[in-house]
Amino acid sequence: MNNPLILVSNDDGITSKGIRVLVEAMQTIGEVVVVAPDSPQSGMGHAITIGDTLKLEKSDLFEDVDSYACSGTPADCVKIAKHYVLKDRKPDLVVSGINHGSNTSISVLYSGTMSAAIEAALEGLPAIGFSLCDYASDADFSHTVSHIIKIAKETLKRGLPKGIALNVNFPAIQTEDIKGLKICKQADAKWQEEFDERHDPYGRRYFWMAGEFVNFDKGTDNDQWAVDNNYISLVPCQYDLSSKSAIDIISSNWDL
Amino acid sequence: MNNPLILVSNDDGITSKGIRVLVEAMQTIGEVVVVAPDSPQSGMGHAITIGDTLKLEKSDLFEDVDSYACSGTPADCVKIAKHYVLKDRKPDLVVSGINHGSNTSISVLYSGTMSAAIEAALEGLPAIGFSLCDYASDADFSHTVSHIIKIAKETLKRGLPKGIALNVNFPAIQTEDIKGLKICKQADAKWQEEFDERHDPYGRRYFWMAGEFVNFDKGTDNDQWAVDNNYISLVPCQYDLSSKSAIDIISSNWDL
Repeated sequence: MNNPLILVSNDDGITSKGIRVLVEAMQTIGEVVVVAPDSPQSGMGHAITIGDTLKLEKSDLFEDVDSYACSGTPADCVKIAKHYVLKDRKPDLVVSGINHGSNTSISVLYSGTMSAAIEAALEGLPAIGFSLCDYASDADFSHTVSHIIKIAKETLKRGLPKGIALNVNFPAIQTEDIKGLKICKQADAKWQEEFDERHDPYGRRYFWMAGEFVNFDKGTDNDQWAVDNNYISLVPCQYDLSSKSAIDIISSNWDL
Repeated sequence: MNNPLILVSNDDGITSKGIRVLVEAMQTIGEVVVVAPDSPQSGMGHAITIGDTLKLEKSDLFEDVDSYACSGTPADCVKIAKHYVLKDRKPDLVVSGINHGSNTSISVLYSGTMSAAIEAALEGLPAIGFSLCDYASDADFSHTVSHIIKIAKETLKRGLPKGIALNVNFPAIQTEDIKGLKICKQADAKWQEEFDERHDPYGRRYFWMAGEFVNFDKGTDNDQWAVDNNYISLVPCQYDLSSKSAIDIISSNWDL
């Protein structure tokens, strides 16, 4: 494909280091347009802005790149990019990230990074969310770049099955320690929350939610195993949540 | 099951009519505890509150029901209910809704109602999201009650397969016009957005996002067809987004 049009978004906000690395990687492949949140939107899941207004400001953060900061969620950014900023131009690829922090396993549901990718898939566009298992704002993304370019080029070449977005996670290790890439499933894990109860200076109760990640999955064919064992994980995610096996069970056994 | 413990949440907020109808329906089955957002949270998807505090206030909105208003999202409500309010008591059933508005098809991704149900499923709890295809704040829920009680009782009796939550949608019609219940899949549809551009009194540009629902699905085995044809739809939804078929395609054909 000659000079493909690539839309870039994320959930950490347009000023984050991760999106800068991703934009520079995509500039080696094609024409880049950025529409990203004007503030951090981590944990926003697939939230959208209903009943409130959206702002969209031209940004000068990226040299030679048409870029915009949007007041909305990652899903809003993809919507306004598709239907307003790009309008009659259809992106050949949508990439989101690079997220500062893991989006393996069940985190895909809470992830703003992946909601941007899934929103693009809903629009029939090939889309990938990239995440690094390091929450630091100055995280070292250097080992991810060549792999991101390869995955993006292969996605542009092959396309993606209808209804699928890719969830790619990188372990936070040095380039030479990466063992390869695993195409795998979402690990069976969850966050085990604790609520830290406090009182404000006026005596009113409030909470901080804190969580510990608990992995129940003993297999080696899942994304959590992959990043824990120095592999890059790639999970093809579908937005059709219907469970055929559960439809069969309920249809044959239940009295409804 | 003798006097089951039922947790009720929603996304329209604890003062909405829909949750009141659901609480009253559940009181005919067991002991009810309510933890619901203190303000409307429609379109919040599976958002959670990271990096900010949560408030939880005892509510006196429901007679003889232990109830709490939480400043967080629907997913936050289920988390704080499970890990703080109920602590050592495990609910036998979690129900969310009744939503003022449809959550058929792709709306399941944007739905706060369904995120509460899916969050409960993640915790290993049987969970159902109920929605009425009527956005009015004074919508008529009377035809939903007997069906909700039946579905809730059957779920308590049968349990749900691991990783599954139910998405139930009611057409906005009179009781006698309901043709029955369809166990079905999520329709292949999407929202087609338009962005209405305006300027504030200071000349700054802002947008209202408006959308039109576009149904590509020509089948009769999906939730949108069901509610459009006067059936109640029931879709079993899984939170494992991994696509086995896409894993196979990418594993065999791609050069990564």
